[in-house]
Amino acid sequence: MFNNIGSLANLIITQSSGTEPNTWGILFLVILISLFGLVIALWLAKWVLKKDTGTADMQKISNAIKMGAEAFLRRQNRTIIYLATGVALLIFVLYGFVRSHHDFDPVPTALELAFWVSVSFVLGAGCSLIAGYVGMWVSIRSNIRTASAAIKSLNDALQIALRGGAVSGLFVVAMSLLGVGGLYAVLLALGKDPAHIPLMIVGYGFGASFVALFAQLGGGIYTKAADVGADLVGKIEAGIPEDDPRNPAVIADLVGDNVGDCAGRGADLFESTAAENIGAMILGATLSTFAEKGGFPFALGGVAVMLFPLVARAFGIIASIVGIVLVKMDKEEKIDPMQAMNRGYSFAVILSMAAFGFASRWLLYNEYAPQAWWHFFLCGVIGVLTSVAFVYITQYYTEYKYRPVREIAKASETGPATNIITGISVGFECTALPTIVISAAILASYYLGKTAFPEDAVVKGVNAGLFGTAVATMGMLATAAFILAMDTFGPITDNAGGIVEMSRQPEAIRKKTDRLDAVGNTTKALTKGYAIGSAALAAFLLFSAYMDEVKLYSGMSEGFVFKVDISKPVVFVGALLGAMLIFLFSALAIRAVGKAAYYVINDVRAQFKEKPGILTFKDEPDYGRCVDIVTKGALKEMILPGLLAVLMPVSVGIIFRLFISETDRLIAAESVAALLMVGTICGILMATFLNNGGGAWDNAKKFIEAGNYGGKKSDAHKAAVVGDTVGDPFKDTAGPSLHVLIKMLSTITLVLAPLFI
Amino acid sequence: MFNNIGSLANLIITQSSGTEPNTWGILFLVILISLFGLVIALWLAKWVLKKDTGTADMQKISNAIKMGAEAFLRRQNRTIIYLATGVALLIFVLYGFVRSHHDFDPVPTALELAFWVSVSFVLGAGCSLIAGYVGMWVSIRSNIRTASAAIKSLNDALQIALRGGAVSGLFVVAMSLLGVGGLYAVLLALGKDPAHIPLMIVGYGFGASFVALFAQLGGGIYTKAADVGADLVGKIEAGIPEDDPRNPAVIADLVGDNVGDCAGRGADLFESTAAENIGAMILGATLSTFAEKGGFPFALGGVAVMLFPLVARAFGIIASIVGIVLVKMDKEEKIDPMQAMNRGYSFAVILSMAAFGFASRWLLYNEYAPQAWWHFFLCGVIGVLTSVAFVYITQYYTEYKYRPVREIAKASETGPATNIITGISVGFECTALPTIVISAAILASYYLGKTAFPEDAVVKGVNAGLFGTAVATMGMLATAAFILAMDTFGPITDNAGGIVEMSRQPEAIRKKTDRLDAVGNTTKALTKGYAIGSAALAAFLLFSAYMDEVKLYSGMSEGFVFKVDISKPVVFVGALLGAMLIFLFSALAIRAVGKAAYYVINDVRAQFKEKPGILTFKDEPDYGRCVDIVTKGALKEMILPGLLAVLMPVSVGIIFRLFISETDRLIAAESVAALLMVGTICGILMATFLNNGGGAWDNAKKFIEAGNYGGKKSDAHKAAVVGDTVGDPFKDTAGPSLHVLIKMLSTITLVLAPLFI
Repeated sequence: MFNNIGSLANLIITQSSGTEPNTWGILFLVILISLFGLVIALWLAKWVLKKDTGTADMQKISNAIKMGAEAFLRRQNRTIIYLATGVALLIFVLYGFVRSHHDFDPVPTALELAFWVSVSFVLGAGCSLIAGYVGMWVSIRSNIRTASAAIKSLNDALQIALRGGAVSGLFVVAMSLLGVGGLYAVLLALGKDPAHIPLMIVGYGFGASFVALFAQLGGGIYTKAADVGADLVGKIEAGIPEDDPRNPAVIADLVGDNVGDCAGRGADLFESTAAENIGAMILGATLSTFAEKGGFPFALGGVAVMLFPLVARAFGIIASIVGIVLVKMDKEEKIDPMQAMNRGYSFAVILSMAAFGFASRWLLYNEYAPQAWWHFFLCGVIGVLTSVAFVYITQYYTEYKYRPVREIAKASETGPATNIITGISVGFECTALPTIVISAAILASYYLGKTAFPEDAVVKGVNAGLFGTAVATMGMLATAAFILAMDTFGPITDNAGGIVEMSRQPEAIRKKTDRLDAVGNTTKALTKGYAIGSAALAAFLLFSAYMDEVKLYSGMSEGFVFKVDISKPVVFVGALLGAMLIFLFSALAIRAVGKAAYYVINDVRAQFKEKPGILTFKDEPDYGRCVDIVTKGALKEMILPGLLAVLMPVSVGIIFRLFISETDRLIAAESVAALLMVGTICGILMATFLNNGGGAWDNAKKFIEAGNYGGKKSDAHKAAVVGDTVGDPFKDTAGPSLHVLIKMLSTITLVLAPLFI
Repeated sequence: MFNNIGSLANLIITQSSGTEPNTWGILFLVILISLFGLVIALWLAKWVLKKDTGTADMQKISNAIKMGAEAFLRRQNRTIIYLATGVALLIFVLYGFVRSHHDFDPVPTALELAFWVSVSFVLGAGCSLIAGYVGMWVSIRSNIRTASAAIKSLNDALQIALRGGAVSGLFVVAMSLLGVGGLYAVLLALGKDPAHIPLMIVGYGFGASFVALFAQLGGGIYTKAADVGADLVGKIEAGIPEDDPRNPAVIADLVGDNVGDCAGRGADLFESTAAENIGAMILGATLSTFAEKGGFPFALGGVAVMLFPLVARAFGIIASIVGIVLVKMDKEEKIDPMQAMNRGYSFAVILSMAAFGFASRWLLYNEYAPQAWWHFFLCGVIGVLTSVAFVYITQYYTEYKYRPVREIAKASETGPATNIITGISVGFECTALPTIVISAAILASYYLGKTAFPEDAVVKGVNAGLFGTAVATMGMLATAAFILAMDTFGPITDNAGGIVEMSRQPEAIRKKTDRLDAVGNTTKALTKGYAIGSAALAAFLLFSAYMDEVKLYSGMSEGFVFKVDISKPVVFVGALLGAMLIFLFSALAIRAVGKAAYYVINDVRAQFKEKPGILTFKDEPDYGRCVDIVTKGALKEMILPGLLAVLMPVSVGIIFRLFISETDRLIAAESVAALLMVGTICGILMATFLNNGGGAWDNAKKFIEAGNYGGKKSDAHKAAVVGDTVGDPFKDTAGPSLHVLIKMLSTITLVLAPLFI
């Protein structure tokens, strides 16, 4: 491994020795590293697949999960493909025929622009679909191998689960980089102006987030409908434990973990990184243009600045690979597996910080502003620290070592009502610290960026403040591959536990998978916090990209500054509608779970009635029927919230064109910007509330199960189960879908901005 | 009654016959009508007090409620007076010694400005305290009279309850008008420039809202802590019905209705009307100044425009009085009492619309823009229609005739978890329609205002758009006195029902008070919707007042336009913090209820243990001890959320002065504006969620109690009780406190703006 890095460093140094900007060299490096990431993913997948697949009993269950997950994803992807094809055609028509061509457009004809935007949309959508599929594919194969390995060694189980997760993590991040880098290379080869390329490939981010939204929604609804349905009838009505083979919805529940957490989150982070790459490239292009005009050109030229985000991401992939490979237990298997994970993550963080410093010095060096590169480097460090802060805050609010979860557990003593009231209050409260951290990160990185250039440069318009926030975002996303590996680790270990439980393995093995499962719960919560934090930072970067784009497409004169003035009534209304979108979307996502869960409940009840022998192990329940019902239900229910998210910003943009006047030509674009920004603000807070609130309820229940306030079967426990059930659609459906929604709002407005002007 | 109106109209016509602006005449009219409103309030109070006070049993209960409520309010007011004194001193010091005097200040010395702002703050705070006290005073005397009247006639009971409520309604609105009008008159008599007076009395609105915030918080925490506490131990643990005399917390619960709903809402609407008056006056002053400069002077001069809001409010008082007096049942007492109420309200609405038209024609006539007055009149009509729309939407989401509540009731069949999930999803969903209505109202009234003047006037800067939204707000608030009467009607009938129940009156009388109580529940929900809608509209007006003020205090040149550009990172962070404030405040308010309820629960349990005879009617519980404990608890718990609300905007304003630079002198004021606006947006949505969600849960329970899904004592009913309990602190503590918070944010920033510049 270390040899590889050494040779890469050599390669880089050779390339950067010239003073001329070596665009192709940099692009080659980026594409090479993304291919390298894919190769490693393949190697890890092979490593995992070679492992033992356990007993026949285990295989039976694992196969049922596999079949269910594949059937769901096949149907879901079909639905998404229909929707995406419609959108692609619409984009083509809108760009090619509805909108009239302007001289200042990035390409000479309307049709050509329409072609590139739609093609990049299709590519983004396709890659996102594949990324989600791969995540699920490897996860449903790693679960049984993890379960089987647990029979012998905890270390083996840990490594299989994490490396299985890493296949998806690496694949997602490398694919996203390869897509953006590859598109860029193709357009460059076709002789396009490098500064205009990002505007031609904005569709890639939108395609990715469009698919991510539906994948996360569909998967999220599926997983929680199955879970809530299984719990309500199984645990509460029939009185059988979780993951019990007598429950007809149990396989659907296990399938849910894969399609919700793996496929959904995979598509989510795929689009995060893709959108962030493109946004940062647009900002880089703007900065270098201004720097050149102001007499402060970067040493390696504007293209180097524009490609910096891709290089930073590429180095992050390598750092993540090293971290993942280094995760292992001590010989006696005494340490907390979380500790092993943390050690690997620390390696990845430190390595990626070093790589960041190197990339900054290499690509962002500026003779006229010699401090610039380390200012940007510090912005990257801020991003990394932000992600660390998010990890700690999420732990404080969701682990039962701390005050918030204990408060909920204590409130359970007085029944479900006080459990819910306290949980909601903890959920609302936990938005405060992350907001403060994000605020500090934005202000600090903006300030560092702004002071990267001397005073006289700033006066000339060379303001790198926004680029500073972009670099912080890159810092936060540097270790995305590792984070995603940890995230997929969750459902794999959860499934492994389910397989061990259902195939009635001995207590000692269950204990091992329980240990892993506990770690998986923690990593799932942490990665959600991370996803929100990065969405918040990335949003800021995407706003700026949107504003730059509006300026370009409006053809306004050089000195023109586009503002988003929410004191204008029309813009204020845009902001109000943006915030409302978040509430309404959450309502629809939560209700979708309720509706889909109802189908499950009815089916399970019907099965218990049709075959009373199920409860005494005489009859076998029809798992497939349940899987089928929840599949159909989830896909049906995902359409409404998904379409709302897509249509609302578009409608505001188009309807508010009514208010365009001679003195206020950009009012529609400005209102959409307000919708986007205030929607993002509300979305961040709401998602934090939903994610952490749900996590806290979950662990309050676990705290009681650990023997507090009367332990299992006590009244407090019953109350805590209510809270846990309420939290399920919050933390696994609405919350994660909001992350994607926020980012999709940015990318959809980026793509459609030219139509609002 | 009609004679009075006739003579007033004569008076007005006499006064408006001159073409010179008759400032003193208009002011005289306003003060006269407010005094008239107070006289009518007094007359109604006497009318109510003359009524029969029922049996000795009833009096015993009523006296216990009276003592408890008075004890709480005395203590609460003492706490609030301490806090307000501190703030008054702080304002004086900040204005008089910290901030340096500028030439463009409205008065010649810093100390004089400090004097007026602090004095108006003290006056506003004092009036608000008195308004809250009067509301409670009359309510705890009307309850027993309503109960006693119910023995004989439903019509008598209805009239006593409504007229008792009207005492507080009229008193609040008339006092607020008298305060603003009187302060204005005093300053005018002292020879101050009329256009500068609003800036000197901004403290009045802040004083009012400061008190309102703590009154609503303290009262809201008290009422729900008592309610939740009484229900949890009484209904669930001991299995005794609601309002049962064996429950030691039952008197505290009945006290809570008075201190939460009457005193809290009284202070809330007092400040609404006061703040809206001042905000509209500032906008009127700006508009008339620009109109004069642009060559489009109003016929009766600028002062007439500035005083228009006061006149419109004064006419609204008369319209409300007529409406209130006209409410009565049919002879057979067969109609729904709500219908009788609605008829009276329709009268008030129609009359106030007519008066609005008259006032517009009289004071806003402009020879150079002859269409202006009826454009403004239409804005007022939009305001009235908005309030009607809010009433319907609130009904749809909270009454069990419609889909949302029925959905929650149905979900109760599968247990408390699905009840909660569905309730939250309904709550989130119900934010959509009000947002759309508010958006439409803002855009339409802005558009009407903007087109009130011809094109060439707009080019010269005569833009009446914002004034149009201000007039819409006035329209919405025109019937505030009637609405407040309906609101106070709620706790009076609730208490009357409690008294009848506890003194074990025959079934027939209980049925009568139950009919009134059901109406009271509806009116309480409706007025909350109304309060949010008016807060949303009024907020927009207060933003503009803030921006005008910033412009004035910054001493920027004439053509300067102050923008709130949330695409600037510092301003965006302000917006983010504003939204976060809403979440954190809600968390603290909800948690405060939980904590205070815990004290109640422990005391009730202790009492049952100490005297086991309580449950068999052998021993009498110690009601006073419970009242005392919840009083202390509520006052202790209100401090933290209250201080957060006050300190957060101030801190942002002061800390963000760090970012002030030569090119961006107003950045701190701009960030505070963003905090205010986005905080308001989130606050409106969150309050709507909390209010309607809570209302829907409440009525889902009632729907089941009416015999659906198994009726009382079924499992569905138990689940619905959980939802109802969760909804309690939402709809009666956090939601209403958010209304006040939104308005206090506006007024506090208005007062402190000069310090952020």
